[in-house]
Amino acid sequence: MSLAPVLAELRALLGDRLSTATAVLAQHGQSESLVSAAPPDAVAFPRSTAEVAALVKICAAHGVPMIGWGAGTSLEGHALARHGGVTVDFREMAAVLEVRAEDMLARVQPGITREALNAELRATGLFFPVDPGANASIGGMTATRASGTAAVRYGTMRDAVLGLEVVLADGRVIRTGSGAPKSSAGYDLTALMVGSEGTLGLITEITLRLQGQPEAVSAATCAFPGIAEAVDCVIATIQTGIPMARIEVLDTATVAACNAYSKTDLPLAPLLLVEFHGSPAAVAEQAERFGEIAAGFGAADFLWAERQEDRNRLWKMRHNAYPAILASRPGARAIITDVCVPISRLAQAVEETRADIAASPIPGPILGHVGDGNFHAILLVNPDDPAEIAAAKGLAARMAARALALGGTITGEHGVGFGKLPLMAAEHGEGWAVMGAIKRALDPRGLMNPGKLVAGA
Amino acid sequence: MSLAPVLAELRALLGDRLSTATAVLAQHGQSESLVSAAPPDAVAFPRSTAEVAALVKICAAHGVPMIGWGAGTSLEGHALARHGGVTVDFREMAAVLEVRAEDMLARVQPGITREALNAELRATGLFFPVDPGANASIGGMTATRASGTAAVRYGTMRDAVLGLEVVLADGRVIRTGSGAPKSSAGYDLTALMVGSEGTLGLITEITLRLQGQPEAVSAATCAFPGIAEAVDCVIATIQTGIPMARIEVLDTATVAACNAYSKTDLPLAPLLLVEFHGSPAAVAEQAERFGEIAAGFGAADFLWAERQEDRNRLWKMRHNAYPAILASRPGARAIITDVCVPISRLAQAVEETRADIAASPIPGPILGHVGDGNFHAILLVNPDDPAEIAAAKGLAARMAARALALGGTITGEHGVGFGKLPLMAAEHGEGWAVMGAIKRALDPRGLMNPGKLVAGA
Repeated sequence: MSLAPVLAELRALLGDRLSTATAVLAQHGQSESLVSAAPPDAVAFPRSTAEVAALVKICAAHGVPMIGWGAGTSLEGHALARHGGVTVDFREMAAVLEVRAEDMLARVQPGITREALNAELRATGLFFPVDPGANASIGGMTATRASGTAAVRYGTMRDAVLGLEVVLADGRVIRTGSGAPKSSAGYDLTALMVGSEGTLGLITEITLRLQGQPEAVSAATCAFPGIAEAVDCVIATIQTGIPMARIEVLDTATVAACNAYSKTDLPLAPLLLVEFHGSPAAVAEQAERFGEIAAGFGAADFLWAERQEDRNRLWKMRHNAYPAILASRPGARAIITDVCVPISRLAQAVEETRADIAASPIPGPILGHVGDGNFHAILLVNPDDPAEIAAAKGLAARMAARALALGGTITGEHGVGFGKLPLMAAEHGEGWAVMGAIKRALDPRGLMNPGKLVAGA
Repeated sequence: MSLAPVLAELRALLGDRLSTATAVLAQHGQSESLVSAAPPDAVAFPRSTAEVAALVKICAAHGVPMIGWGAGTSLEGHALARHGGVTVDFREMAAVLEVRAEDMLARVQPGITREALNAELRATGLFFPVDPGANASIGGMTATRASGTAAVRYGTMRDAVLGLEVVLADGRVIRTGSGAPKSSAGYDLTALMVGSEGTLGLITEITLRLQGQPEAVSAATCAFPGIAEAVDCVIATIQTGIPMARIEVLDTATVAACNAYSKTDLPLAPLLLVEFHGSPAAVAEQAERFGEIAAGFGAADFLWAERQEDRNRLWKMRHNAYPAILASRPGARAIITDVCVPISRLAQAVEETRADIAASPIPGPILGHVGDGNFHAILLVNPDDPAEIAAAKGLAARMAARALALGGTITGEHGVGFGKLPLMAAEHGEGWAVMGAIKRALDPRGLMNPGKLVAGA
């Protein structure tokens, strides 16, 4: 099929904000992970919802696939043009449209990153709490149902998104949700679109719940005799009901990688990184209760980060854990796992995973948002060694099967893309067919991010 | 159409748990509100998911509508057999299947009521927080996306439901969600089913998030010079970030009705009812900060309920506000409104509503879950006076239009049923058509609770 007619129409709409330059196409054909696809046929940079709607109508008329693009940080190939088509890059739709401090919400465009949003919010006394580590776009985080380090306290994108504007597969524009904190007015289209990975439409505006900046913040690291003790401490802490703002685990291999990459000198042992938010009295009370629980599991080497700059250094180190782990094996690529289990099964899931990796030929440091039951093994492979790739894929498949057997999920926060497509039937059974029926109802020709999330689409 | 063949098949499946007795049909043809429909053709009392699936297959084969029934407390005719058919009463599926205290969740059948569930949980140290006042069934609350007095702290059914088992329109059984606290594995079918009012399938099992019973609880009532001051106090309190467990407003007419019905002697003034949950120190701190804010709005007559029995009396009085208001005008029926607006618009919404009711010929006491921006006017009409009914309908329509103009929703917690069907297009625009497309994809023949929530179904 010649794309010349559709590209001509799109160029009439967007001018030089439609690109077919090789470098631009190549940039939008890259992915963090091992999943890969050919670059898109063109990249569009719309500036308004009206332009997105017009673009969708043109592509729909020609049967051309459309793929949304935020910051390019997704981990399962979500934004790759698996069946060609036009990638819609939202970098020119990156504004904060409105901050309503009295209602603790903001309306933003999809291209803004979470760090840029928080920079704009700084003077308001509010912040946007969802923090996946990477400086992802809010549109991408919405489409992937992202979460990260602070979800244990503030929830995931499922909780943070109050409403959306979405351009559907035929160019119609809908608004979901309202400015009210809750509603019972029909199907929850907001929740349906959050996590739909661009397969039901293109998100052009997001209304976000914000949180009040805590009066007091305190963070700490502490070391444990083994990862089992660290995980058991997390379970006990969560079950005690302490409202942890963050509670993260790093295994010894991750700590070693972080020390080398971030020039830190953390003790070489499994660590918990914790943070407390609240009034000064509440933070002190929470920290004391956590300290007592941790001591019972053999915690030592408590390092407190009371000053903002110390906390910034701590969380920058944590956010750089992924490049640190990559750098720990020069030339390696990563297969990143993302299972999530009920908190009561977390120790078993981590311990069995650790033993499985130890028996394999490849390294796989473990870290995670363990307060949510969510952890990752970063499986480091020589991309030219099929045996290592096969070993990593076997480990990842067994982790997923283990998570399902323990009542959990194959992906806590990274999403499906096409990397996790082969696992969806095992998690959802007939429910996956229901997802397919919804996809066909809203996108009968399969033009919105085809080849992702649902079967055969 | 003769229903004899389908009833014969259902009787073979269920024996005397299929009823066509006039009294049983009449009981399932009643509704709390003024919306009405003829009774169903039969009522089924299944005992298992397998029986529900078999029942659905029989009804589907004969093209007979199916309507779920919990406790019969819905307010918009949700459970009425508008197009005849078989009402599926879940009273024999009312068990707690599993409590996993370490994961703070419970799996329950749809027929259990929230009070029965909390009675079973008492010894576990956990409780189920969603409290709509009525002793509704968990299945009905899920289907309606209910909330109530404690949603300001603990969220609505959207937040409380972690997973579901659903029998679809063709008898297939799906499980949504998992036991993990979060997931990014595809479309959020749990959220799609919560609030779907039985129009996409029959819910046969619900996995609920539970909360830890607070260490300390304190409640109070306080009186304000006017309802505007009470509402402004709520707005200031919420914006300050005090984690209120409950914050409810009653206007003077509601207080008078409650005093008469519940034999209380609350001051005849607009009241706030508040409750604080937390550690003893946190509760004391919250109560003190709230007291300071309330004093700034002229609050007086603080009455503290420290003892459990005093709090029980207080919330029983609040839960009986609806019958109390009904009893305040003997022979009256109620048209119950349920708007919800952004908290910054709450004072305007309440004040304009109050003035509108004052200018009308009918009484309309106001009360609500104002911490969520959600309030109700209970419009009391002589059911034999068409002019009063017309006045009430006009008031309700203006309240809905006002809520939408202020960025809110036509229903914060009662749902659509068929009472609010005429307002859906105004709230959702093209989004309502999307709901219709989803309905047709999952229930192409329109057999699941037809005539509710979506257009023309």
